[in-house]
Amino acid sequence: MNEQSVAALLHQVRNGEIEIQHALDQLRLLPIELLNSARLDHHRTLRTGLPEAVFGENKTVEQLIEILGALLRVPNVVVATRVSPEKGEAACQRLNGLTYHPVARMLTGNEAHAPADGGRGTVVIVTAGTSDLPVAEEASVTLQTFGHRIATVHDAGVAGIHRILAHSALLQQGSVIIVVAGMEGALPSVVAGMTAAPVIGVPTSIGYGTGAGGYSALLGMLNSCAPGLAVVNIDNGFGAACMAAAINRAT
Amino acid sequence: MNEQSVAALLHQVRNGEIEIQHALDQLRLLPIELLNSARLDHHRTLRTGLPEAVFGENKTVEQLIEILGALLRVPNVVVATRVSPEKGEAACQRLNGLTYHPVARMLTGNEAHAPADGGRGTVVIVTAGTSDLPVAEEASVTLQTFGHRIATVHDAGVAGIHRILAHSALLQQGSVIIVVAGMEGALPSVVAGMTAAPVIGVPTSIGYGTGAGGYSALLGMLNSCAPGLAVVNIDNGFGAACMAAAINRAT
Amino acid sequence: MNEQSVAALLHQVRNGEIEIQHALDQLRLLPIELLNSARLDHHRTLRTGLPEAVFGENKTVEQLIEILGALLRVPNVVVATRVSPEKGEAACQRLNGLTYHPVARMLTGNEAHAPADGGRGTVVIVTAGTSDLPVAEEASVTLQTFGHRIATVHDAGVAGIHRILAHSALLQQGSVIIVVAGMEGALPSVVAGMTAAPVIGVPTSIGYGTGAGGYSALLGMLNSCAPGLAVVNIDNGFGAACMAAAINRAT
Amino acid sequence: MNEQSVAALLHQVRNGEIEIQHALDQLRLLPIELLNSARLDHHRTLRTGLPEAVFGENKTVEQLIEILGALLRVPNVVVATRVSPEKGEAACQRLNGLTYHPVARMLTGNEAHAPADGGRGTVVIVTAGTSDLPVAEEASVTLQTFGHRIATVHDAGVAGIHRILAHSALLQQGSVIIVVAGMEGALPSVVAGMTAAPVIGVPTSIGYGTGAGGYSALLGMLNSCAPGLAVVNIDNGFGAACMAAAINRAT
Amino acid sequence: MNEQSVAALLHQVRNGEIEIQHALDQLRLLPIELLNSARLDHHRTLRTGLPEAVFGENKTVEQLIEILGALLRVPNVVVATRVSPEKGEAACQRLNGLTYHPVARMLTGNEAHAPADGGRGTVVIVTAGTSDLPVAEEASVTLQTFGHRIATVHDAGVAGIHRILAHSALLQQGSVIIVVAGMEGALPSVVAGMTAAPVIGVPTSIGYGTGAGGYSALLGMLNSCAPGLAVVNIDNGFGAACMAAAINRAT
Amino acid sequence: MNEQSVAALLHQVRNGEIEIQHALDQLRLLPIELLNSARLDHHRTLRTGLPEAVFGENKTVEQLIEILGALLRVPNVVVATRVSPEKGEAACQRLNGLTYHPVARMLTGNEAHAPADGGRGTVVIVTAGTSDLPVAEEASVTLQTFGHRIATVHDAGVAGIHRILAHSALLQQGSVIIVVAGMEGALPSVVAGMTAAPVIGVPTSIGYGTGAGGYSALLGMLNSCAPGLAVVNIDNGFGAACMAAAINRAT
Amino acid sequence: MNEQSVAALLHQVRNGEIEIQHALDQLRLLPIELLNSARLDHHRTLRTGLPEAVFGENKTVEQLIEILGALLRVPNVVVATRVSPEKGEAACQRLNGLTYHPVARMLTGNEAHAPADGGRGTVVIVTAGTSDLPVAEEASVTLQTFGHRIATVHDAGVAGIHRILAHSALLQQGSVIIVVAGMEGALPSVVAGMTAAPVIGVPTSIGYGTGAGGYSALLGMLNSCAPGLAVVNIDNGFGAACMAAAINRAT
Amino acid sequence: MNEQSVAALLHQVRNGEIEIQHALDQLRLLPIELLNSARLDHHRTLRTGLPEAVFGENKTVEQLIEILGALLRVPNVVVATRVSPEKGEAACQRLNGLTYHPVARMLTGNEAHAPADGGRGTVVIVTAGTSDLPVAEEASVTLQTFGHRIATVHDAGVAGIHRILAHSALLQQGSVIIVVAGMEGALPSVVAGMTAAPVIGVPTSIGYGTGAGGYSALLGMLNSCAPGLAVVNIDNGFGAACMAAAINRAT
Repeated sequence: MNEQSVAALLHQVRNGEIEIQHALDQLRLLPIELLNSARLDHHRTLRTGLPEAVFGENKTVEQLIEILGALLRVPNVVVATRVSPEKGEAACQRLNGLTYHPVARMLTGNEAHAPADGGRGTVVIVTAGTSDLPVAEEASVTLQTFGHRIATVHDAGVAGIHRILAHSALLQQGSVIIVVAGMEGALPSVVAGMTAAPVIGVPTSIGYGTGAGGYSALLGMLNSCAPGLAVVNIDNGFGAACMAAAINRAT
Repeated sequence: MNEQSVAALLHQVRNGEIEIQHALDQLRLLPIELLNSARLDHHRTLRTGLPEAVFGENKTVEQLIEILGALLRVPNVVVATRVSPEKGEAACQRLNGLTYHPVARMLTGNEAHAPADGGRGTVVIVTAGTSDLPVAEEASVTLQTFGHRIATVHDAGVAGIHRILAHSALLQQGSVIIVVAGMEGALPSVVAGMTAAPVIGVPTSIGYGTGAGGYSALLGMLNSCAPGLAVVNIDNGFGAACMAAAINRAT
Repeated sequence: MNEQSVAALLHQVRNGEIEIQHALDQLRLLPIELLNSARLDHHRTLRTGLPEAVFGENKTVEQLIEILGALLRVPNVVVATRVSPEKGEAACQRLNGLTYHPVARMLTGNEAHAPADGGRGTVVIVTAGTSDLPVAEEASVTLQTFGHRIATVHDAGVAGIHRILAHSALLQQGSVIIVVAGMEGALPSVVAGMTAAPVIGVPTSIGYGTGAGGYSALLGMLNSCAPGLAVVNIDNGFGAACMAAAINRAT
Repeated sequence: MNEQSVAALLHQVRNGEIEIQHALDQLRLLPIELLNSARLDHHRTLRTGLPEAVFGENKTVEQLIEILGALLRVPNVVVATRVSPEKGEAACQRLNGLTYHPVARMLTGNEAHAPADGGRGTVVIVTAGTSDLPVAEEASVTLQTFGHRIATVHDAGVAGIHRILAHSALLQQGSVIIVVAGMEGALPSVVAGMTAAPVIGVPTSIGYGTGAGGYSALLGMLNSCAPGLAVVNIDNGFGAACMAAAINRAT
Repeated sequence: MNEQSVAALLHQVRNGEIEIQHALDQLRLLPIELLNSARLDHHRTLRTGLPEAVFGENKTVEQLIEILGALLRVPNVVVATRVSPEKGEAACQRLNGLTYHPVARMLTGNEAHAPADGGRGTVVIVTAGTSDLPVAEEASVTLQTFGHRIATVHDAGVAGIHRILAHSALLQQGSVIIVVAGMEGALPSVVAGMTAAPVIGVPTSIGYGTGAGGYSALLGMLNSCAPGLAVVNIDNGFGAACMAAAINRAT
Repeated sequence: MNEQSVAALLHQVRNGEIEIQHALDQLRLLPIELLNSARLDHHRTLRTGLPEAVFGENKTVEQLIEILGALLRVPNVVVATRVSPEKGEAACQRLNGLTYHPVARMLTGNEAHAPADGGRGTVVIVTAGTSDLPVAEEASVTLQTFGHRIATVHDAGVAGIHRILAHSALLQQGSVIIVVAGMEGALPSVVAGMTAAPVIGVPTSIGYGTGAGGYSALLGMLNSCAPGLAVVNIDNGFGAACMAAAINRAT
Repeated sequence: MNEQSVAALLHQVRNGEIEIQHALDQLRLLPIELLNSARLDHHRTLRTGLPEAVFGENKTVEQLIEILGALLRVPNVVVATRVSPEKGEAACQRLNGLTYHPVARMLTGNEAHAPADGGRGTVVIVTAGTSDLPVAEEASVTLQTFGHRIATVHDAGVAGIHRILAHSALLQQGSVIIVVAGMEGALPSVVAGMTAAPVIGVPTSIGYGTGAGGYSALLGMLNSCAPGLAVVNIDNGFGAACMAAAINRAT
Repeated sequence: MNEQSVAALLHQVRNGEIEIQHALDQLRLLPIELLNSARLDHHRTLRTGLPEAVFGENKTVEQLIEILGALLRVPNVVVATRVSPEKGEAACQRLNGLTYHPVARMLTGNEAHAPADGGRGTVVIVTAGTSDLPVAEEASVTLQTFGHRIATVHDAGVAGIHRILAHSALLQQGSVIIVVAGMEGALPSVVAGMTAAPVIGVPTSIGYGTGAGGYSALLGMLNSCAPGLAVVNIDNGFGAACMAAAINRAT
């Protein structure tokens, strides 16, 4: 039952062609059927403020191209994450308007449809080590594609605590701080103690032995004694960017 | 070395009583000593925008009373979490100006020092089941003490999906949403798909068998396919409130 | 917006008092508001075929009595699980029509409202050891309260494989088999190899050392090489009963 | 000791050639030896209602061809799971009557021997994301080979809750629902709250970070607050199909 | 169908009262029914060489007394493990012929029915620390009740490696060695390198931090680089004794 | 200090060339130095009854050839485990007298030095599925090289319980039973309930999802409710063979 | 065989009363028997530089009193850890010369026997929060009883990074630093980046949710990106003190 | 603000060009900005006594060459760990003065800048098996590059306990002992019981089944009952060397 059929039903009611009780019975099923339309994606953007993103890891090149081709025809920015260089190159060759970001392993498109000024302030992205760069880049490309301003502080791990202290002013001016760290994941705790901005911790799978996979970093962030810190899944730079975008959204 | 001694040093420089190089050597140690003062707590509030909070679980009644007594003398709101009823009653009897919140298991004080309007909008706190209430109350009391407006939606777990759909408008109007859920922890995913506001998931330790301890709920939230969601530690209502306060802060 | 107000709206449409487009706009919000009513529970029973059940573990006596009192006034069977003897006795003293089942740790009521013949066949409940009885009883009381026929085979663990073989005929006649086992959890594999009926494995937390908590039994059942077996959470006799009821439902 | 030898023994008893006590002693060993026959496979089908299936993952091409060749000579459907494309092609080239299903990674044969109408109703297979398709296909091919009718709902994850609500009617009409989901595994909870049919959850290993391997999805399903849901091992589409077949079996 | 009814059936065959085919049909069900009798326990002792043992942890005093009373009437040794002092005393007051062993937390009875010489040699029981004594005692009491000779070496942990070296001769003479150790569980590795006898490792739950629960000790034993070592569950002194008894059995 | 130097010291004592106290001081260091000789390997065989075995997995071809070449010159059987086909072939080409066993992935040599009759009885090796064969072969080749008699029962998993019951007599006659099983690891429990012989469980890493890596099988075996069962590490066929050899050793 | 009997043997050799070969044979057993004497503890102190310590957790009052009474008669400091107040008081009442330390939960005695100057420098003990004090006290009491100088820095967690920076000079002057921290365990990383002294991290079980039990803190320390840091077991203040004492030992 | 600008500020103060209060305000920000200079690395060496090391695993060849090239121009030893042979060869071809160590998988340079005598004594490095050699070599190369003397004991695992006892004297003479062990990780316990020197345990990922990844060895070392032992991350030979260097530093 779509809007046309509801309108038709109401016309029948007005014309006395059906009983009100009967119309009532049909309307009981309304909410569900109304939503089953081709405009779902627009609704999603409206509802969540974030465009549809494509998770590239388990998709074939053909699936990627089909989905991205469809999204490019809609006036909205396009973002695909976890796209290998091979898939990325193939997609760029077959579809116009896509850009492949090799460090972030992302495809973006329709960037012109991003809001001119996507956010209230600047999102600061901090990394603990150079190995954390790809995850930070995923956050960075996502936020820029969504129309947010970013600033970055790299290689500021806690073993040399003075490195992060040197950026104290920037951390206090950001509207949101994303901190990307592997190993022991202590940097978000330190940053959250230095700023009034909300801090989003992104544990990375950088590490070995008990650090392999990123669980050590995740636990370190979840158990932080610093207030104003929340966490996303290991290596989830995209998720951190979405949370930051939701916070930084101009309202 | 405190401000007075730095000023004295500068006077010595001005008066030519010491060499500039010698003054330089002493100043090299400055940053550290300056901070080791009784004003640290004020700095913390300034730096992080959040007052000092006391973690009551591993403290004796005597320790609690000593710390809270000191904090009450400072013109700032006072918050202590994970305080058992016995400790809470003892503290209220010995110190004026404290309130014990039995469901949240918290002590608060100096509430009058909270900012008149602590936030840009309303923080919506959603719970999946009645067993999640104490954790939600910890978030609620914390936010209200910090001067934020809250709204609550209770008992809206995903097994009856229509319950949360009924609050769609409220979820879209909140400036931040805190979702407290145990068991499978699916509610934050659903909520994050319904709103443009940032969502903070709080897994609770409610559950049994493989759900005991809250790991199932935590994993559910970390692996959510919905964007705009970040997570705090299991049962950490206070941490969720601090993150929400950092986001909702009026700037 | 409830049924009455929708009916009123339709009357307005019929009488030409409002525009069809305007009615359409109001109806768009219908699904959500309609559901936010006191009749939710009836819908749940209609939707899932199973009455509302109360999880007693984290509820106070007062909360239990309030909820159960409300449910008893509705013509539907009442089931509460994980109710301690103290809470159970208190509830029975304060509310008429409740029965406490000490082994199953359950409260039931309004049993007369169960369907006269709730199922297509007999649900067979098998336990590996006497320590698994409370979980089996939770399944048994639940199924009987829901109006299903049950048969039981107790103390048939795989260390004496002949014990379960002796019940081969019964296992082949059941419409569903629930197998409750702790320790290594091997019994469901053996049973599933002996019958064409669907088998529901319920791991129990009976065990010690590496078996403590029931993970060994759960893993044993999830990794069974026997087809026709699915699993519920550790100690979740109620969940197994609901799955069995859904399967055995007379249609 | 087989049937012939037991018959011979009974003839000896009748003819008085051996003592009854002596016959009794020999019969004590009967149950075991009787079963050690070449007809075991037929018994399995009779006992469990499901044909023998071959687990292809750890088998060489030669082992696969030998086993499948033998099974094809018996008038029963043949199913092999977890067969790589290389092994699948090799088997199809060497044996007549096999079909390779690339998405499901399965080999099937003797499909004509499936029962004309294998089930009481329709098995509905729901997936949360396109990455879950291979596991859903394993369930789908298995059920169709066993003679069951299926219907499918794809890409209905909870982050856009309206997608699954749109299929409410289908979910209520199915006799069993299989829900395949990775990530946070919340979809089965939502589905189980929408239907009276038994729901079988299949966690998939789709995910990364804490979601890698499928444990997050598994825990989400085991801890569901929705009744009428049981779970099979991660990625076990075949197991879910067997459970569904056992439930849907026409009796 | 028990022995009497089979004998009756054979008499009918001899007397020509029933057809041989008919007798064959009835006998097909024999194995199962024959075993479903009160003589099951005797069969168990015959099959496994070990008497029935009662796991006391999850049983009520009443259940223990009923089961032990029945076992005491059979001419076989009686063993119950994990019996609390309260239950043990209650059982001894109500039943004649039981002995409670407080360190081992066991009840034994009918000791006179143990074989005069239960084993080929001496079972040596070694403990790493005094905290491991209760588990060692469970093994010791079990073996002695089953009629085996034992020797003990206590407090011989690897931190003072000379302590175990001092018992080299005894370790070489034992027919089986049981090594009980918590913490890092290294002692079985050392012992297995010193003797040709089979070594059974019993990890204990003695430890704290990462050693709590005994997993560290269990992993240490499973990963031993010394040959001739197998392991039982954490704290399972009874299981180690049964394995030792099976090895040491006089044949 | 070796035997010669101790003898020389004693001669000095006899001849009065050194003080007794001085000799005493030197002898205090004796135990350690005496052992530091090239005859360590012989001692090992004497002490443990088992020849040195080479763990091939982390060794280069050159390291393997050097070590095996040295061992082949000693009159003792030679065993290397976890040798890849490439390393195995290279070693066989470079050293005379080695045999490579491809299924077991082992190298053996000097087989003529095995004792003519290595054991008291027959070691029975049982596997649950064909995928468990390589681990069973490792046990089998090891035991045969050590001079023990073996018998095998293959593909006797518990899903078709009659398959293992058919071998009841063999299981009762073995002096030790090794049971190799992956998945849920339930077969050793069933076997241990059928025989008086000691049973050694070998979990295998065969499985997927929660069964991957063999933990499910390991836990199943450690938590068996059947007495007379001990366990070795996952996939440790060699360790099971050593334990079996220690038990079966002719004394 | 003790020193007296070896001396007697040597006298026999000198007197020609026994053959040198015969003496050699007896001496071959020497190392082991010599060590099996009451002087073992002295050897331990000589070998490891650390006195015997008693682990009080799993010992009864009677066992504690017996062991401590024996140790007090030897001229060496006495240390018992994890002693509850009840046991501690009972021991102090029954034995002279013991002191109970309630925060550290330790008993000490014979303190006068500690070396006058036990160490090369000062051991600095740092805690992250007041909840970590008991573990720090265990380290502190142990080190002082062993004769080492200590300095302490309390409540210097990383959320207020300036607190630890304020103690930079002290950290650089210590000869060893012990850092005690729960929650995310990040403090040792920061400290190790500030000093050239070796740092010993002690994770504490302070925390809740994913921090419960101290695993988060342990992983944080093991995965530190700062060099010069090693870790002991969770809550093992005594072990950290022993490592510090071994490092700080005057040589 | 660097030293030059502070000096300029002081000159302004001396010349009366700015107010003392104004100078004070600027100096408040001093500590942070002063540190943000290119001389950070020198500070690090001064602070921690250890040169900067490069973690090679997640770096590209280009990144490695850029960083190492910069470090080689500074008069300090250069160390890079976890460098694959391919990357190592490429770096050696492009940069003068680098040496690649294939077993340790390390690059070193500027060795002439190491202190002539880096340590107080000898660091003894012990390995349990030949598979542990690469990790031991990482420690060995690191220590030698840092100017420390080392001694090694290889292949001294606990299954042949006499092998390590033979090196008792060396273990007592070392100033620090590093023990590298996989499997059950018991060797550090034994060594720590034999020496007064501090012992650093390095678990290795050598093992299979439950030993895979090195967790078994790590737990064994953390739960050692021997005092004077601390632990670093799995396979972290570099970390153990840094801890040993910190301990052994000549002061």
